[in-house]
Amino acid sequence: MQLIIGDKAYSTWSLRPWLVLKRCGAEFEEVVVRLNRPDTAERIAEHSPAGKVPVLHVEGVTIWDSMAIAVWAAERFPEVPLWPADAHARWLARSVACEMHSSFMGMRVQCAMGPQHTMVGPDRSEPPGDPQVAAELRRLVDIFRTMRAQFGAGGPFLFGEWSVPDAFFTPIAARIRHYQLDLAAHGDVDGAARAYVDTLLAQPDFLEWSEGGLSELAKA
Amino acid sequence: MQLIIGDKAYSTWSLRPWLVLKRCGAEFEEVVVRLNRPDTAERIAEHSPAGKVPVLHVEGVTIWDSMAIAVWAAERFPEVPLWPADAHARWLARSVACEMHSSFMGMRVQCAMGPQHTMVGPDRSEPPGDPQVAAELRRLVDIFRTMRAQFGAGGPFLFGEWSVPDAFFTPIAARIRHYQLDLAAHGDVDGAARAYVDTLLAQPDFLEWSEGGLSELAKA
Repeated sequence: MQLIIGDKAYSTWSLRPWLVLKRCGAEFEEVVVRLNRPDTAERIAEHSPAGKVPVLHVEGVTIWDSMAIAVWAAERFPEVPLWPADAHARWLARSVACEMHSSFMGMRVQCAMGPQHTMVGPDRSEPPGDPQVAAELRRLVDIFRTMRAQFGAGGPFLFGEWSVPDAFFTPIAARIRHYQLDLAAHGDVDGAARAYVDTLLAQPDFLEWSEGGLSELAKA
Repeated sequence: MQLIIGDKAYSTWSLRPWLVLKRCGAEFEEVVVRLNRPDTAERIAEHSPAGKVPVLHVEGVTIWDSMAIAVWAAERFPEVPLWPADAHARWLARSVACEMHSSFMGMRVQCAMGPQHTMVGPDRSEPPGDPQVAAELRRLVDIFRTMRAQFGAGGPFLFGEWSVPDAFFTPIAARIRHYQLDLAAHGDVDGAARAYVDTLLAQPDFLEWSEGGLSELAKA
């Protein structure tokens, strides 16, 4: 099993299935395609029919898209609780993970990651003043606060115990930290959303990813 | 069970779960929120925490996002084959459906649906000359041709028999028709992709949706 990913310093999409596979205890070979290089498109094309990372090679099949890989993992590792056991919590966990998968375009563009901005480097960016980013941030804070309040009793994650949405929100948590986005000014009245963001960024798997990203930056 | 949708004439996101629920034989009440009206945002907010349609109300839970509703449907109606039975086909079916869910932003914007452009009305639009649209169209043609060639032996749909990706690609099939996009000029050398698009647009469920859209337009 081979997971093709982009640079750990800034491939936000790659981080998600990597976290899911780690959580499953999957043994996989990691292949990093360095982004923003002259041969990047060519190298990705060797692996990915959609021309994007991440991509998983398994049993001779190429599975792409972070959500498709997460759903594959739930099928392949049924003993690992990747989604909440409670049906209503599970339906909402899928709703928020799918919303993250298809939306938040303002933050993706205005709080982009790339050679100048990384998920793992020092936090030195000015927050963008864009109104779309502000609206998306309010929406994120609302998701974090609502789900934590309703389902968070059993642990520090969005639905208490760890589940796929935590993997899907980790990259945006890193954007929030890097761009120093002010959650309190966007509805986080008691710091519950901030605490959740801090939880995601303190996970050992994310810290391992960050170490890898810092090594890349040191070599670049 | 209540499905909240936008106008049938142009709510591309709403069409997807509507097609999935129809395929399941689900009995659901349909609530249409008219888009592009002064009270649209207020009316959507009554139903949808994400401020978007479609939304499904079931068992007191609000499920949003077209993909989350499709996954819910597979859980609720296990007797309906919503995804291919063959494992490898299923992994690819999820890959292409998730790619449709997160990508093709050029076509969404440049081939938008709204009061001036509809999925169901006469085909009168000039195709956009945008290079991003051209690249996305080549990618779509490649998906359609590759999956049809590999898995299409058992029927006219993307994976032979009907599956969720067919619901997810129906709105973009309607964009292709409305904007008169030339598939042959983007890699459809023998018309296989065009035949698949025509299949989607000839389905009884889509024709029923179209009738609803035409009724809306007549009343507008």
